[in-house]
Amino acid sequence: MSPRYDTILITGAAGRLGTELRRGLAPLARKLRLASRNGIKDLAANEESVTFDLADADAVMAAAEGCDAIVHFGGAPMERPWQEILDSNIRGSYHIYEAARKHGIRRVVYASSVHAIGFHRLEDHIDTNAPHRPDGLYGLSKCFVEDLGRLYWDKFGIETVSLRIFSSFPEPADRRHLWSWLSFEDCNRLTAAALTAPRVGFTVSFGISDNKEKPVDNRLAGHLGYNPQDNTEAYRDAMEAKTPVPDPKAPAVQFLGGFFVEMGHPDDEAAK
Amino acid sequence: MSPRYDTILITGAAGRLGTELRRGLAPLARKLRLASRNGIKDLAANEESVTFDLADADAVMAAAEGCDAIVHFGGAPMERPWQEILDSNIRGSYHIYEAARKHGIRRVVYASSVHAIGFHRLEDHIDTNAPHRPDGLYGLSKCFVEDLGRLYWDKFGIETVSLRIFSSFPEPADRRHLWSWLSFEDCNRLTAAALTAPRVGFTVSFGISDNKEKPVDNRLAGHLGYNPQDNTEAYRDAMEAKTPVPDPKAPAVQFLGGFFVEMGHPDDEAAK
Amino acid sequence: MSPRYDTILITGAAGRLGTELRRGLAPLARKLRLASRNGIKDLAANEESVTFDLADADAVMAAAEGCDAIVHFGGAPMERPWQEILDSNIRGSYHIYEAARKHGIRRVVYASSVHAIGFHRLEDHIDTNAPHRPDGLYGLSKCFVEDLGRLYWDKFGIETVSLRIFSSFPEPADRRHLWSWLSFEDCNRLTAAALTAPRVGFTVSFGISDNKEKPVDNRLAGHLGYNPQDNTEAYRDAMEAKTPVPDPKAPAVQFLGGFFVEMGHPDDEAAK
Amino acid sequence: MSPRYDTILITGAAGRLGTELRRGLAPLARKLRLASRNGIKDLAANEESVTFDLADADAVMAAAEGCDAIVHFGGAPMERPWQEILDSNIRGSYHIYEAARKHGIRRVVYASSVHAIGFHRLEDHIDTNAPHRPDGLYGLSKCFVEDLGRLYWDKFGIETVSLRIFSSFPEPADRRHLWSWLSFEDCNRLTAAALTAPRVGFTVSFGISDNKEKPVDNRLAGHLGYNPQDNTEAYRDAMEAKTPVPDPKAPAVQFLGGFFVEMGHPDDEAAK
Amino acid sequence: MSPRYDTILITGAAGRLGTELRRGLAPLARKLRLASRNGIKDLAANEESVTFDLADADAVMAAAEGCDAIVHFGGAPMERPWQEILDSNIRGSYHIYEAARKHGIRRVVYASSVHAIGFHRLEDHIDTNAPHRPDGLYGLSKCFVEDLGRLYWDKFGIETVSLRIFSSFPEPADRRHLWSWLSFEDCNRLTAAALTAPRVGFTVSFGISDNKEKPVDNRLAGHLGYNPQDNTEAYRDAMEAKTPVPDPKAPAVQFLGGFFVEMGHPDDEAAK
Amino acid sequence: MSPRYDTILITGAAGRLGTELRRGLAPLARKLRLASRNGIKDLAANEESVTFDLADADAVMAAAEGCDAIVHFGGAPMERPWQEILDSNIRGSYHIYEAARKHGIRRVVYASSVHAIGFHRLEDHIDTNAPHRPDGLYGLSKCFVEDLGRLYWDKFGIETVSLRIFSSFPEPADRRHLWSWLSFEDCNRLTAAALTAPRVGFTVSFGISDNKEKPVDNRLAGHLGYNPQDNTEAYRDAMEAKTPVPDPKAPAVQFLGGFFVEMGHPDDEAAK
Repeated sequence: MSPRYDTILITGAAGRLGTELRRGLAPLARKLRLASRNGIKDLAANEESVTFDLADADAVMAAAEGCDAIVHFGGAPMERPWQEILDSNIRGSYHIYEAARKHGIRRVVYASSVHAIGFHRLEDHIDTNAPHRPDGLYGLSKCFVEDLGRLYWDKFGIETVSLRIFSSFPEPADRRHLWSWLSFEDCNRLTAAALTAPRVGFTVSFGISDNKEKPVDNRLAGHLGYNPQDNTEAYRDAMEAKTPVPDPKAPAVQFLGGFFVEMGHPDDEAAK
Repeated sequence: MSPRYDTILITGAAGRLGTELRRGLAPLARKLRLASRNGIKDLAANEESVTFDLADADAVMAAAEGCDAIVHFGGAPMERPWQEILDSNIRGSYHIYEAARKHGIRRVVYASSVHAIGFHRLEDHIDTNAPHRPDGLYGLSKCFVEDLGRLYWDKFGIETVSLRIFSSFPEPADRRHLWSWLSFEDCNRLTAAALTAPRVGFTVSFGISDNKEKPVDNRLAGHLGYNPQDNTEAYRDAMEAKTPVPDPKAPAVQFLGGFFVEMGHPDDEAAK
Repeated sequence: MSPRYDTILITGAAGRLGTELRRGLAPLARKLRLASRNGIKDLAANEESVTFDLADADAVMAAAEGCDAIVHFGGAPMERPWQEILDSNIRGSYHIYEAARKHGIRRVVYASSVHAIGFHRLEDHIDTNAPHRPDGLYGLSKCFVEDLGRLYWDKFGIETVSLRIFSSFPEPADRRHLWSWLSFEDCNRLTAAALTAPRVGFTVSFGISDNKEKPVDNRLAGHLGYNPQDNTEAYRDAMEAKTPVPDPKAPAVQFLGGFFVEMGHPDDEAAK
Repeated sequence: MSPRYDTILITGAAGRLGTELRRGLAPLARKLRLASRNGIKDLAANEESVTFDLADADAVMAAAEGCDAIVHFGGAPMERPWQEILDSNIRGSYHIYEAARKHGIRRVVYASSVHAIGFHRLEDHIDTNAPHRPDGLYGLSKCFVEDLGRLYWDKFGIETVSLRIFSSFPEPADRRHLWSWLSFEDCNRLTAAALTAPRVGFTVSFGISDNKEKPVDNRLAGHLGYNPQDNTEAYRDAMEAKTPVPDPKAPAVQFLGGFFVEMGHPDDEAAK
Repeated sequence: MSPRYDTILITGAAGRLGTELRRGLAPLARKLRLASRNGIKDLAANEESVTFDLADADAVMAAAEGCDAIVHFGGAPMERPWQEILDSNIRGSYHIYEAARKHGIRRVVYASSVHAIGFHRLEDHIDTNAPHRPDGLYGLSKCFVEDLGRLYWDKFGIETVSLRIFSSFPEPADRRHLWSWLSFEDCNRLTAAALTAPRVGFTVSFGISDNKEKPVDNRLAGHLGYNPQDNTEAYRDAMEAKTPVPDPKAPAVQFLGGFFVEMGHPDDEAAK
Repeated sequence: MSPRYDTILITGAAGRLGTELRRGLAPLARKLRLASRNGIKDLAANEESVTFDLADADAVMAAAEGCDAIVHFGGAPMERPWQEILDSNIRGSYHIYEAARKHGIRRVVYASSVHAIGFHRLEDHIDTNAPHRPDGLYGLSKCFVEDLGRLYWDKFGIETVSLRIFSSFPEPADRRHLWSWLSFEDCNRLTAAALTAPRVGFTVSFGISDNKEKPVDNRLAGHLGYNPQDNTEAYRDAMEAKTPVPDPKAPAVQFLGGFFVEMGHPDDEAAK
């Protein structure tokens, strides 16, 4: 397969998932431009490093020049105080989309999150058309960027796939991960599918591996061609042994967002 | 895997499906308490026998003491006169749920039936949210117990999985079974999934093997993690040879419940 | 208008709503047969009294002879211990339907209740196809009779309209009634519509007046031709003055069933 | 009627709609606190003026003290460059919700807009659960605040009614307004309903008068009790005479958002 | 009001409904061009007569020249043998749409029929997106023309409103008409709304008066602004006295199409 | 397996797909009767040839005599002028259904097409209940025959499976085929499933192989038991290399029908 893209900008390239994407997306582009705040040293031949803060509009604009796709995994990766969420996730993502618009970049793949719909119940089996129900400021910023992507498609013709990543870690770490885990390999498969699907317009896809228990309905993303290959069965016994069976009425068990739904306000935490 | 439960009470343990569950559920509990009306003799080391009639509230209450799950497959397993349905299935199941409530048992897995929704049409491809449409007094009692389980979850926090078993026999016996059959192994898989799924609240699942023709949509039970492994293809030729192609407008062919929809009232039959 | 029916059997005729129906249904039949446990004395010329307990199958069968419609408002009208719910509402209603079947009575209008769907949320705006979610044993018995009516239509061709009455009192009595009230006149209009609509098969209708706030969607009962004429605006100020604004997260406020969802088990109450 | 609230904070009180709300909401509170950037001079006895910029978190916090409801109509009322949308609508609304949270204010009524769903088609007759499809940065900020309100309800128990106002002007001004107009009186009725409905949780309502042509389905807001009394029939001939029949395939005619969907990016406009 | 159109071509202008439309549509156009097979004599000043057979493509093309709207009520108005349905309704309507396309006529209002969806059940309360279920060759031709209109909108930008007229007669004539009647005045209102609604694309609307019993859901045609003013209550007693209460399981009572669903094949009838 | 049918009439037997069906359906019948306009020479022992034009009603009637199923793949296989579509596809299919009715043939399998729903968008993931949206006269004729099949089931009890074939060619030929391809083997599997499924009534199924990207939802045809075994992955690189990535807003990319949606009117083409 010849690379589909010339240069893909990957934001958050030094992060947990971004590091994996360097390997996973290598076959898809001639060049991966790796964006981080502190620079990346161990560059491969097909990689280049750009260093900037997402809150810096001019830097983002400059970094995106010459790219033909953006894989936007940057920004605060968890619940953080408002000012940080605002700068990194809201303003930062606006800068990304403006760069895409100004440079004529046709497709963005965005790392959204289960926390954009964290207050939906497990047993409601929502599909990707269900209304947003964020479970914190982090999730709220993910909702914002999804709507931003929708606008830039409807109005400016820039395609977006918004990946609602559930729990992407090296291994499942608790009982909830038994159904919410997304393996790194499947995360790479999903991101690659989002980059190569023939037409995506604005598409939202849930990001979960092929785990035995399935909490959501990803039917509406069928045109992406995402086929997860991993699952959590090998970890089941260990995870179940680790903690007692939880109370089924506990909010962290009822809702898709897990313990995020029980966290207080991050500005209160920060003020402590 | 260490057992998930200490003691599971299995009602109907001497019945067609109950007998299979003894094998299938053995790995899930330290002890299986086998309930029947006449006692079970061939007990394994992990089994104990309790003898009672479901219509006897006190006996049910006593039998459930010390259990942490109930697999309720007891009661009349087919269309029967009202008084028997009332005593065994309606009153009997109420006794089961009261025992669960009084003893703090957290989860019930119930053998509901296709006959709770037998008057829906095959081609309507209903999901588990479709309204009840029982096809006889037997199915009516299954509807009642489903609603009972729903109430005990919503109000008292006792989880239920209601399994709408289609046709669970050693082998398919007629053309309809080609799509409605649930193998004994898959019945065990389904019951085990219902016992081990991380959170079920009140969940209804259809119970069918992975047959080629699929009459219903089990999407809303995805969080159970039920993956059927059997199907009826090996029996197809024999079943098709056995009877002529039926009239597609015959009620027994149109509706999910099969010949139940054409049966008269059981009290009339009993009076003959 | 000439009467549509010859003789209508009204069960619960001595009750709060039954008393109103005597007036409201008078134009629809040559004769109203008023059923109660203790007899009714003040009979009008078009009325006759029959006395029996719904739990007595033979008495019900005898009482229904010669009727061509049954308006079934009898049985326990509120949360009661299981034995009473079982005898009056479950067994009693079975006797009613058997009488309809044996005597060839073509239509039953049943007083179901909001408590059959009391655990649905106000803001979900359910329609009449939403699954049952009873909020107590009373509501559970209402679910049972709805399914019974469905069966007797699908299998035996007896039509039923199941009226999910919300709060039918002389006047609204609290804040919740501002949206849940059904005036006596509207209750009569609804029952009359259920008796005269050209074809009902098995139909469920919500029973609420034309109150300003509308919690549910009665679209699927449009073929009944029910047009409520009353509303609660005249009572609003008084009701709002009576009690403080409640906590919007309180279950009795969240769910359609109101304070029923917060009641304990009636058998526990009875045992005190 | 005695006032339902003690003090309502109205933001945007000097704006087109805010001015009307002073009259419309007067009966609902003992005191209206009118927020604007430049102060309001002609105060009535039941009014007080507070002056601040929504972008100033401390000022917002101070202004909300002692209020028991917020009617948030402030911020940029049309498509504006990003920085202004960010400061006035995104950051400003966050400050409002933080003030509500810190001061224990229980309900917010928010002036959202048709432009939050402007890229949906007229003939799709969406209801309020349809996904966001903003038609510009203005609409994008409205989506953000809706999600913010949803979060503050789900997590912090603060109720919100989000009013998607279509076209609220003194009179209809063009053909599209014939179906999209919201009269000032109906805007007041809608806002009052949102303040007085018994329980709203997080509710979205479309804001249109009772115009003859109905483009959307407001069924899911039925519990608000909004009954519009005005319509555009008196303006029809004048509006139709004013402009020729438009091309039915023109985006501004196809989509709910009207000419907003055809506007370029406001930052480009600003840069000219 | 000044006329919205210059010249409207009305086909079937000599028919039962066409005759009424001459009066009803007069205010909407400078000129009504009345098409019939035999010519119309009593022309008013605003009318002109054209005479042709719909099966004659050239004649249709000529007749439509200079029109800016077509109200297509012509063709066989009831179940007829295939050859007549084919010539008058299928080929004839194709000629009409081709004429619209060639002459640049922007809107067609078509008299479709309940018989396009006659095999749906009354209690299913279908909306206008439900699949076609014709109840005879007549209904089949109505389905064809609806799809034809859909194609000419999607591909050629010609708008269509397809009116599924239920039972439009001077007065209701039987029990079914109590819910299916469309008064002539309401038929005129509906046709006028279809001609004047600001944008219709391809819209289907049910055509029924405001009768008490409502069998279908016309929500998706809300943008037409059709407000029926008549109903059948004045005829109820007479209609109910005329025939006994029908069997609720009879197909003619179950299905929307009434007795059409029970008619044999028209070619068999014709061959007798 | 013994053959399920005695004699299957295959129309279009000399066509691209018909030729494949001779092999694929051989095990299902004692005899295949191959219909074509010019006769078929290379007959196998289980085959016979009949020669006629679908527009000739008598010839169709004669050819179907003695058959117990019809696989109707004949008629114009692409966009053609109206007269040809009318004769071959509309009139011809009517003749087929009349032959089925007169000869008591119980099941028809019809080669419908994606072009019956070609104006639906890829990302809408329609199911088979979505309204028709033909993308040309060819697709319009497919819609007509689907409705014809529906009528003959509802009224005359003849079962139909309507196969909406997407792109069935020896190999994928362009990018769109990567998601729309139906291999010849899968076409045979689908047709065989449609012939052997126990009850089909009137069923519509999409016809696509198990390609990675899935544009539609075939859930409602689950009772057919169609399990595609092929996919386009082996052709992906070649197809992607062949043409540049297309504009995602181009109609031929947006809509299911592909380039058909951009074709002009076939009568205009023919007139050139």
